[in-house]
Amino acid sequence: MIRVGVIGYGTIGSRVADAVRLQPDMDLVGVAKARPDYRARLAASEGVRLFAPPGEDNSWEGSGIEVAGTTEDLIGESDVIVDATPSGRGRLNRPYYERGGRPAVFQGGEEPSIGEVSFVAQVNYDAAVGKRYVRVVSCNTTGLARLVWALEREFGVEMVIANLVRRAADPHEFKKGPIDATVLDPVSVPSHHAADLREVIPGLRVFTSAVKVPVTHAHVHMMGLRLASEVGKEDVIDVLLRERRITLVSSRHGFSSTSDVFRIGRMLGRGRGDVYENVVWADSISSDGRWIFLAQAIHQEAIVIPENIDAIRAVAGLTSGSDSMNLTDSTLNIRRGFLY
Amino acid sequence: MIRVGVIGYGTIGSRVADAVRLQPDMDLVGVAKARPDYRARLAASEGVRLFAPPGEDNSWEGSGIEVAGTTEDLIGESDVIVDATPSGRGRLNRPYYERGGRPAVFQGGEEPSIGEVSFVAQVNYDAAVGKRYVRVVSCNTTGLARLVWALEREFGVEMVIANLVRRAADPHEFKKGPIDATVLDPVSVPSHHAADLREVIPGLRVFTSAVKVPVTHAHVHMMGLRLASEVGKEDVIDVLLRERRITLVSSRHGFSSTSDVFRIGRMLGRGRGDVYENVVWADSISSDGRWIFLAQAIHQEAIVIPENIDAIRAVAGLTSGSDSMNLTDSTLNIRRGFLY
Repeated sequence: MIRVGVIGYGTIGSRVADAVRLQPDMDLVGVAKARPDYRARLAASEGVRLFAPPGEDNSWEGSGIEVAGTTEDLIGESDVIVDATPSGRGRLNRPYYERGGRPAVFQGGEEPSIGEVSFVAQVNYDAAVGKRYVRVVSCNTTGLARLVWALEREFGVEMVIANLVRRAADPHEFKKGPIDATVLDPVSVPSHHAADLREVIPGLRVFTSAVKVPVTHAHVHMMGLRLASEVGKEDVIDVLLRERRITLVSSRHGFSSTSDVFRIGRMLGRGRGDVYENVVWADSISSDGRWIFLAQAIHQEAIVIPENIDAIRAVAGLTSGSDSMNLTDSTLNIRRGFLY
Repeated sequence: MIRVGVIGYGTIGSRVADAVRLQPDMDLVGVAKARPDYRARLAASEGVRLFAPPGEDNSWEGSGIEVAGTTEDLIGESDVIVDATPSGRGRLNRPYYERGGRPAVFQGGEEPSIGEVSFVAQVNYDAAVGKRYVRVVSCNTTGLARLVWALEREFGVEMVIANLVRRAADPHEFKKGPIDATVLDPVSVPSHHAADLREVIPGLRVFTSAVKVPVTHAHVHMMGLRLASEVGKEDVIDVLLRERRITLVSSRHGFSSTSDVFRIGRMLGRGRGDVYENVVWADSISSDGRWIFLAQAIHQEAIVIPENIDAIRAVAGLTSGSDSMNLTDSTLNIRRGFLY
């Protein structure tokens, strides 16, 4: 059994903790969390052991929530750490994991240099096996990498142009804007996603730009890919139907917006209504010579969860990526081709 | 003097009527409007003569607003008609203009076949001179055509990929959605903008797709253009700075969203806070080999107003497009390069 400690219990950390508890080869040692808020209360009520950073404040005392120890205690009891703290905190935390001699999985908000590998399971699981520090890339980069890699592997990809229409805030982030604007974020292009994608797929010729808009449930990627040869729409559909963690949908079945992504997530019966798959509109796929165009949606809160689970196994030394991904997908109820 | 009658007094019609009143070579005969609502009341208070469709209802009686005559009377008194009725109504109205022997300018919501020319003044003014029926293309197509044409003329454009992030509703349209979704509109690509753009620039290789998002103030176009040769960012900036009806802005000056488009419109002191220009972010321009990438915003309520004014002169027989555009731009306070 791989004993897993999760540091940070926000959007990603809480989901990783839940997913770890579903794995037959993993034990959740506990989670480290800064404040004893309602989410800590809920975790405690479910029997999750809570660890607190030492000396930050006294808010845990008198909270009525039992604290199992310090963050350092959690590190000591774990075989693998998943750091899901806010962007940039992972860099400050890594020395503690080094001191404890524990391999760690970081998130995409950290600089690539924090890990030996920028990780997307389908693309480069092997490269992460036995590494000490692995960085799961961000939600957008994960979604781009899965899709581009499937087409690169099958057809060869010469160039990618991806325009990202990003959700501006997660549903619980009521303080964030905008509420009536499309914001170029960044204005200066390319956005960081291009360089980040090249961390996963080296040498890829890719241009990315991004806007954020007043929606909360999913990003949308509007993509053009120039392939190494002319490939028809049906060939692309065939490849994507067989591909892991990509699901095809169609407007013929009433699927036309990120609201539909949100609804299908709630209908799947998974925890939190999560959608772990790239959601690709089959009828958005079109070809013009060697160019393929398509649109996909990415549930930003959920898509990296299977990657975190696979990254745990990789740093723990499991050599078979397909074994890991098969196990992750079956425990998380990720099926192929079932919505198309 | 060109006597102009405006049929329809909504977002476009009311702006065209105002713009006509600013032209030294035009007289606004009046506007035809279906209902005596607050906008009719405001127009009447400004001395605009109102004409009503005959027999639709009796709502004008007892409204306290003087009716100058029927729509047919308006047609009879006018040299040129601008039809700004809702999409698809222009087709039903055209027989009345034919019967009255009046040339007419239609809007982009109509099928291209309603006009002899799909019109963007900078691109094809000459083709519309002396024609009977001209169609000013939609806001998005107008914005695309101005930009693509400037680069086509200077450098040659081999391919255009344009992903449109559309405002879902105008500010007054409180019944329209979405409020928290990105909607693929359409899902099946290319969107109609590609074919519409080819009506203006025949033979152009262009792919377009579009989403709509919960914003009200402007569309954003995320564009990639493959040019006939390698061209640097500064060369593109030089061309666009000199181009009519395109304004460059920069995030260095704090310009990063459609909210800034809205604000600058209100600061310009024009009627209704209108922005008639394509708003191109200079720092969004980048090049990769023969590809140029950039982002622009389009104020959907305003951008076609100068085109309507020029189209009136074209069908009235004024042969010089540059004379018309110069006059339009000076009366509407459209300057070049002043925001960059």
